[in-house]
Amino acid sequence: MKERILTGDRITGKLHLGHYVGSLQNRVSLQNEYETYLILADVQALTTHFEHPESIKQNLRQVALDYLAAGIDPDQATIFVQSLIPEIAELTTYFSMFVTVNSLRHNPTIKAEAKERGFSDMYYGFLGYPVSQTADITFCKATLVPVGEDQLPHIEQTRKIVRRFNQLYKPVLLEPKALVGEVPRLVGLDGSQKMSKSLGNAIYLDSTREEVQEKIQKATTDPARIHRTDPGHPEICPIYAYHQAFRKEGSAEIQESCRKGQIGCRECKGKIAQSINDLLEPMRDRRSKYQHDRKKIDEILMAGTEKVRQVAKETMQEVRDAMSMDYFS
Amino acid sequence: MKERILTGDRITGKLHLGHYVGSLQNRVSLQNEYETYLILADVQALTTHFEHPESIKQNLRQVALDYLAAGIDPDQATIFVQSLIPEIAELTTYFSMFVTVNSLRHNPTIKAEAKERGFSDMYYGFLGYPVSQTADITFCKATLVPVGEDQLPHIEQTRKIVRRFNQLYKPVLLEPKALVGEVPRLVGLDGSQKMSKSLGNAIYLDSTREEVQEKIQKATTDPARIHRTDPGHPEICPIYAYHQAFRKEGSAEIQESCRKGQIGCRECKGKIAQSINDLLEPMRDRRSKYQHDRKKIDEILMAGTEKVRQVAKETMQEVRDAMSMDYFS
Repeated sequence: MKERILTGDRITGKLHLGHYVGSLQNRVSLQNEYETYLILADVQALTTHFEHPESIKQNLRQVALDYLAAGIDPDQATIFVQSLIPEIAELTTYFSMFVTVNSLRHNPTIKAEAKERGFSDMYYGFLGYPVSQTADITFCKATLVPVGEDQLPHIEQTRKIVRRFNQLYKPVLLEPKALVGEVPRLVGLDGSQKMSKSLGNAIYLDSTREEVQEKIQKATTDPARIHRTDPGHPEICPIYAYHQAFRKEGSAEIQESCRKGQIGCRECKGKIAQSINDLLEPMRDRRSKYQHDRKKIDEILMAGTEKVRQVAKETMQEVRDAMSMDYFS
Repeated sequence: MKERILTGDRITGKLHLGHYVGSLQNRVSLQNEYETYLILADVQALTTHFEHPESIKQNLRQVALDYLAAGIDPDQATIFVQSLIPEIAELTTYFSMFVTVNSLRHNPTIKAEAKERGFSDMYYGFLGYPVSQTADITFCKATLVPVGEDQLPHIEQTRKIVRRFNQLYKPVLLEPKALVGEVPRLVGLDGSQKMSKSLGNAIYLDSTREEVQEKIQKATTDPARIHRTDPGHPEICPIYAYHQAFRKEGSAEIQESCRKGQIGCRECKGKIAQSINDLLEPMRDRRSKYQHDRKKIDEILMAGTEKVRQVAKETMQEVRDAMSMDYFS
């Protein structure tokens, strides 16, 4: 039997290059080797978007389309909708009985996100989303979770919760491992630490050739380089980071030319824009196949959700049995 | 259409006289007037008993039996098992998005219970049980909740959550009212503030005549009364509290006789033991009908749960629609 992968995204908007190199690329390359479950995390999106659930509805098919465009094969991988698996909510409830409030408060990613969002008083659901994520991973018995770097504390918390559950009741759940992508954190076009929708510094997977070229040309570079011959500092330049991520084979040469003032930013940007477009081109082809076929996307999501529901029911049966909650059997 | 009642008990042990006068009596007397849903709160019991779920399994039928013995008519009222309604877990998740951690921390009953149980670091599920209770009440659109006095802060929190949900999304949920029993808090046999299983100061609904007599005779009374003729202080005597609760018509006379030193504690205790046994006698008859028929109890619980599941599904449909989560319809 193949090992299982659980991975997915909070449905807060379409996906960008940061998602691709952070985890999506891994998901695509591993989908034949592992039984892959891709969660469209609409419930988790509510932790930050409860005031605008209609935006989640709008983005749900968009993210599914991004997956399909990126190369996820719906005959290999199973894409499903989180809120349609009530067993996840049930498991979350059971785990929450033995997870302390302080262990959640001390989770570094929760702390950072709360700060970023200016939550002086945290919402209960937001504080507990690592517990809900544990349910996402464990209900389908995934052992590998391709994630971005910021999710590592959550996987650690998941492993602790699994160990505690298995020790309290019966060893029915599996401890997962995290798999961080080649580029755990992609810088934004503005040079800020992380490419993100909310910072407006992202190149989306559905960009046209022209959009990629334009965004790259407008991107921040080393401010010390005024003239083409000024020596550059690639280590602080987002464009160089993109060379490392998307044009690895030529990146050593770029670094040298930049330091020596032998290549201009415009030319350097042209090269990376080309590489990014080379990456996105096959995605555009695949996207065009699905883009106007909402019925086909819905079929994929409904079939995936139905399949996952069966897996969830089996796990819940084992969980209830382990917890002496098999009252009528 | 009849208004609905939701009420029930955390499954932590069999029921005692405190439960009866606090809420069970109301439930029995209102079951014809209201459509009554009685929840066997096994999930909520896990908030304090997650290390011993087998005790919940043992007590589940015991509490159902207490209901039936007390006069709950399974043809009128619907008894169901909380953990078998996954919609409750789902609704809890949705409410938790907009309930702040501090509003739960400041809930006086949560504070008191955490202190009582010596929780220095609270469990996440324990902190959030008022959110889960809100789901219990709202999924079945109950408007009246017969509860003990300690539950009043939770009903207040429920009303706030309902208002917030209805304002954020669509007004599909109903604001419930609490109904506190005639004796909101029954003192224990040892004179402590509350009759409770954990304090070992309770008279259970399944007591025999002899057990009632014995427990009453051993109960604490006014320590100032050494001799029969010493003037008593009924206001500090648990036995007098029981006269008020279970022998109301004669309680004024008892008060006077006690104050004047005209009645001995033994005689006074004999009278109240008789009244309590008069109350419990018809319960004993009803209990004997079900006691050895586990199959019958299981049928009642399974049929009740099945019925409630349909109600829950309808409400979740409305909730999903209100929250724009009706993705494929």
